[in-house]
Amino acid sequence: MGEFDLIARWFTRPARRAALGVGDDCALLNLTPGMQLATSSDMLVEGRHFLSTVAPERLGHKALAVNLSDLAACGAQPLAFTLALALPRIDEAFLDGFSRGLLALADAHGCELVGGDTTQGPLNLCITVFGELPPGQALLRSGARDGDEIWVSGTLGDARLALEVFRGSIALAGDGFERVRAAMELPTPRVALGIALRGIATSAIDVSDGLLGDLGHILKRSNAGATLQADALPRSAVLAAQPLALQRNCTLAGGDDYELVFTAPPAQAAAVLAAAQAAGVAVTRIGRIEPASHGLRLVDGDGAAVGQRFAAFDHFKS
Amino acid sequence: MGEFDLIARWFTRPARRAALGVGDDCALLNLTPGMQLATSSDMLVEGRHFLSTVAPERLGHKALAVNLSDLAACGAQPLAFTLALALPRIDEAFLDGFSRGLLALADAHGCELVGGDTTQGPLNLCITVFGELPPGQALLRSGARDGDEIWVSGTLGDARLALEVFRGSIALAGDGFERVRAAMELPTPRVALGIALRGIATSAIDVSDGLLGDLGHILKRSNAGATLQADALPRSAVLAAQPLALQRNCTLAGGDDYELVFTAPPAQAAAVLAAAQAAGVAVTRIGRIEPASHGLRLVDGDGAAVGQRFAAFDHFKS
Repeated sequence: MGEFDLIARWFTRPARRAALGVGDDCALLNLTPGMQLATSSDMLVEGRHFLSTVAPERLGHKALAVNLSDLAACGAQPLAFTLALALPRIDEAFLDGFSRGLLALADAHGCELVGGDTTQGPLNLCITVFGELPPGQALLRSGARDGDEIWVSGTLGDARLALEVFRGSIALAGDGFERVRAAMELPTPRVALGIALRGIATSAIDVSDGLLGDLGHILKRSNAGATLQADALPRSAVLAAQPLALQRNCTLAGGDDYELVFTAPPAQAAAVLAAAQAAGVAVTRIGRIEPASHGLRLVDGDGAAVGQRFAAFDHFKS
Repeated sequence: MGEFDLIARWFTRPARRAALGVGDDCALLNLTPGMQLATSSDMLVEGRHFLSTVAPERLGHKALAVNLSDLAACGAQPLAFTLALALPRIDEAFLDGFSRGLLALADAHGCELVGGDTTQGPLNLCITVFGELPPGQALLRSGARDGDEIWVSGTLGDARLALEVFRGSIALAGDGFERVRAAMELPTPRVALGIALRGIATSAIDVSDGLLGDLGHILKRSNAGATLQADALPRSAVLAAQPLALQRNCTLAGGDDYELVFTAPPAQAAAVLAAAQAAGVAVTRIGRIEPASHGLRLVDGDGAAVGQRFAAFDHFKS
């Protein structure tokens, strides 16, 4: 089986939204008139973004989910994506599972596979996703203002907790492990929430490298500081049963959460909660934007500074 | 140095056409009102798409050139691209050269780097390119009609000849080698020609896997056959000095040419030549489209069938 048979068997479906889908030199897409294109690329490498133990179907889901999460962070409506895939060899069981997980999530978001590339090489998954949104309505990292409240969706830290189990640094009983493993391997991109927050949130980013690091991008771009309530961070029952230092490490510097952290003026709190309810996801207030001179301060429930040190995930460190 | 420093140092420049460039969750792009988006992704892996001996600056050029070539084959005007890059380590000399070659070609085409991803891993370059064109005017693989003439731009086969030198199967004197090596390492995407052929050509594809294989895609999509003049294929003086069987192998099944092969009715021949002249590239008539039942026939200058066998390049074979 060669490259073209592989594409035909696993990745070609009739074009729907696209004017022209898989199989020509380019894919052709019609944006809704007056809309702006939003696009993002993420590359996943074994050992850094996923473990060799992951089921192919979950890997297919995750490869697209992390890209949809970038659209969500901008408040864009997903349209389509391209997939470039390097595989050591053509492994039918892998491709069956991978394409099934990938296309199921794509269908759930009406996000069409319109093209890409396949080649032999060390396993590498590169997806570029396309969305659209009204000009001027994108949620950017640069819009946070002094006094804004800081919110986060869902819960944080489970993916990191699962990684620590895989690394052998902690142990979890069966059911707890399966739950945090699903958080790591099957993240839910907050697409509906991102769209619902247009015109309400002043800034947003998705939490992929750890809350502190990603919130740091908002602060840098917005020229702002913040106080974060370390113990207000939402976490699962499984994580909440762990030692406090581990809880804080996982929620603050875990990475791979794919939740949205965003800011909004206090007067918009009811609108934020309504948007979250409409999108079917919980949101939690976790802190406040302050002047840049305050830096990023972490406090506990008593308002005392948290001394623990954290490092955000960096794909060139480890 | 980490991921974000790497992006800032080598790949961040002020946004121009893009509403929002490198550094947020998504890049935002405004298409010209009424235009359709054309997009394509190509992934380059060491040993399959480039050799470890290539200069980083040339690799940067080639990584974008092969993507621009896909836009050219559709007749689309380049707008922007994203770059996802896996690197074994941060190698400053490599990144200096790579980004210089990449951005020089990008500037030459007004094609802006708007986002992407960097990670540690086996060397892998994945570019997704965006262009625009008026709806209904894309050059597709499916439009070739019985009686159309088949044309190709530039010359064919030099990249393959260079590869044979690297493989040690032939030897070339210094100047000749440098010339074919430049064809392999610094391909010229035929962007202006593709745009000029809108409304003139009935089908087009870029020659990346070898003329026979790529013309085969046009024939399959167009449900057509063809006769190709094996000895009419344009070739460089360096290649023309080689044995005939090698010339034919390089021109017909070489790969990595990044020329356009396209079809047009005989009545459009003058328009084809005018488009080529305006685009500053030579074009050569190399055959004719026939009914599908004729298959793809190769004839020599006397009209006799060429018996030599060829195999198109497949990234899962070799």
